[in-house]
Amino acid sequence: MLNPSDYIKESIEEIKKTVGDGTAVIGLSGGVDSSVASVLTKEALGDNLIAVFVDHGLLREGEAEYVQKTFEPRLNFRYVNASEEFLDALEGVSDPEEKRKIIGKIFIDVFERVAEEVGAKFLVQGTIAPDWIESEGDIKSHHNVALPHGLVLEIVEPIRELYKDEVRIIGTELGLPEEMVKRQPYPGPGLAVRVTGKLSHEKIAVCRKANAIVEEEVEKVGIQEELWQYFAVLTDTKVTGVKGDIRDYGYLVVLRMVASMDAMTAHVPELPWDMVKTISRRITAEIPEVTHVSLSVSDKPPSTIEFA
Amino acid sequence: MLNPSDYIKESIEEIKKTVGDGTAVIGLSGGVDSSVASVLTKEALGDNLIAVFVDHGLLREGEAEYVQKTFEPRLNFRYVNASEEFLDALEGVSDPEEKRKIIGKIFIDVFERVAEEVGAKFLVQGTIAPDWIESEGDIKSHHNVALPHGLVLEIVEPIRELYKDEVRIIGTELGLPEEMVKRQPYPGPGLAVRVTGKLSHEKIAVCRKANAIVEEEVEKVGIQEELWQYFAVLTDTKVTGVKGDIRDYGYLVVLRMVASMDAMTAHVPELPWDMVKTISRRITAEIPEVTHVSLSVSDKPPSTIEFA
Repeated sequence: MLNPSDYIKESIEEIKKTVGDGTAVIGLSGGVDSSVASVLTKEALGDNLIAVFVDHGLLREGEAEYVQKTFEPRLNFRYVNASEEFLDALEGVSDPEEKRKIIGKIFIDVFERVAEEVGAKFLVQGTIAPDWIESEGDIKSHHNVALPHGLVLEIVEPIRELYKDEVRIIGTELGLPEEMVKRQPYPGPGLAVRVTGKLSHEKIAVCRKANAIVEEEVEKVGIQEELWQYFAVLTDTKVTGVKGDIRDYGYLVVLRMVASMDAMTAHVPELPWDMVKTISRRITAEIPEVTHVSLSVSDKPPSTIEFA
Repeated sequence: MLNPSDYIKESIEEIKKTVGDGTAVIGLSGGVDSSVASVLTKEALGDNLIAVFVDHGLLREGEAEYVQKTFEPRLNFRYVNASEEFLDALEGVSDPEEKRKIIGKIFIDVFERVAEEVGAKFLVQGTIAPDWIESEGDIKSHHNVALPHGLVLEIVEPIRELYKDEVRIIGTELGLPEEMVKRQPYPGPGLAVRVTGKLSHEKIAVCRKANAIVEEEVEKVGIQEELWQYFAVLTDTKVTGVKGDIRDYGYLVVLRMVASMDAMTAHVPELPWDMVKTISRRITAEIPEVTHVSLSVSDKPPSTIEFA
């Protein structure tokens, strides 16, 4: 069994030993893992850890404000708004692998700029056990990374041995708010993987609104802790509808709400039907671009949790 | 209240008076309305009514065989296989209005050929009350129709005053099997409106398989009479999945099961969750092209029953 205060004490020692007086950066996404890795490392390095939050314009509604509000008082926090750079590069792209590649590339570019600016020598990462257990091969724990424009950073992974539930315990012990350590996982490429087909500013905005409605209603009913993730996907399928008395032609949205222990497998549980109908009604009423809503019923496997 | 045997007697009189010794044709789709109109008119005209069943290649699994088996012994039945003509014209078409137009045009062409061949002077139609009440304007009950290549036919509409439930009563009185008069409505353009985006032979075949699974499982659970329609839509959205251990990229299927009194409005009722999950599992297991299944939850309005 994990003893949180021992674990924290030992980690602080080890980080201090590795980094010394050096400067470290971490890409803080607002997810549980990078958040806990940030506040833990901050205990060791103080303001020598710069937490870089890159806004790629693919965030959920209110997310940038939430992360800023939560971490500005706690960390040497750097907010970088790169949303135009990301969205312009993604406009019109439809292949999911290409979307991920573009996002990854721009992210590293932006991140390297900041790391260079602050003179960082170390890169802290919120890697946890399932991340490296899933991807065999990458088993060494001490290594360097060379960023595309030549910056070489030494990797520090302070929560590498932990599982998700242990990460949450450490986060709580370090004073992170309850709702932060219990957040649902959110994909790195953000809403980009929740819009199928060609990306556009408009579709990302529509997808963001639908996701906000799903989160609101799930949290109103209070079943968020029974779910691993709950979100909406904006598909590229267009469906005939009627709004007022007029024939309409709009997008199909798919609701995805899964239960899971570890994301390796996941299943769609039976959900409160009234909640599902309310979400559906709100989405078609509040988002003019959407004419039809459906509820994903596929488990993982054979499907994946996110659509891309 | 409708007295079925009186209604039938009066209709027979009227049809005889109108058509006399002439030859009539009817487009028999296999749906309840045209089926009942056919057997009713047959009582009046005998083999002078030719029931033309046009197979457009967009039928459900087993449908052609079912219609043939049911009507060949009862009617002067003519099976016309025009599926290649339809499917070739539809290949690559994605606009739903264009799909409907192409199907309507070819249908009339094929139908006119047969009507000309048999020397028809009358066209019997299975119009029922909601058909002409919904489309104001078309209120006259006696009129002619000029087909595109010049054939002029006088329209006969023997069940024009009836509502769906009355049509079923008349059908039963005329000896049609129970499962025939209770069939769910099926769109004229068939599977073409259940495939979104570009049509292809392959996609129609995939959609046909998914529809067969939905029908099988709904009828196994035995809730078909509580539903107005139950079917599957093959969307043009592609979703990442995992089959075996391999990353897969396939279609999203939407299940649509609605309850309705008259199709003017419709709602998605809460459905047996086990049934929904079984359908989903069977579709992804039995149809390699599909990676993800969702259940439509949108009512009419704001959505429509069919997707196009």
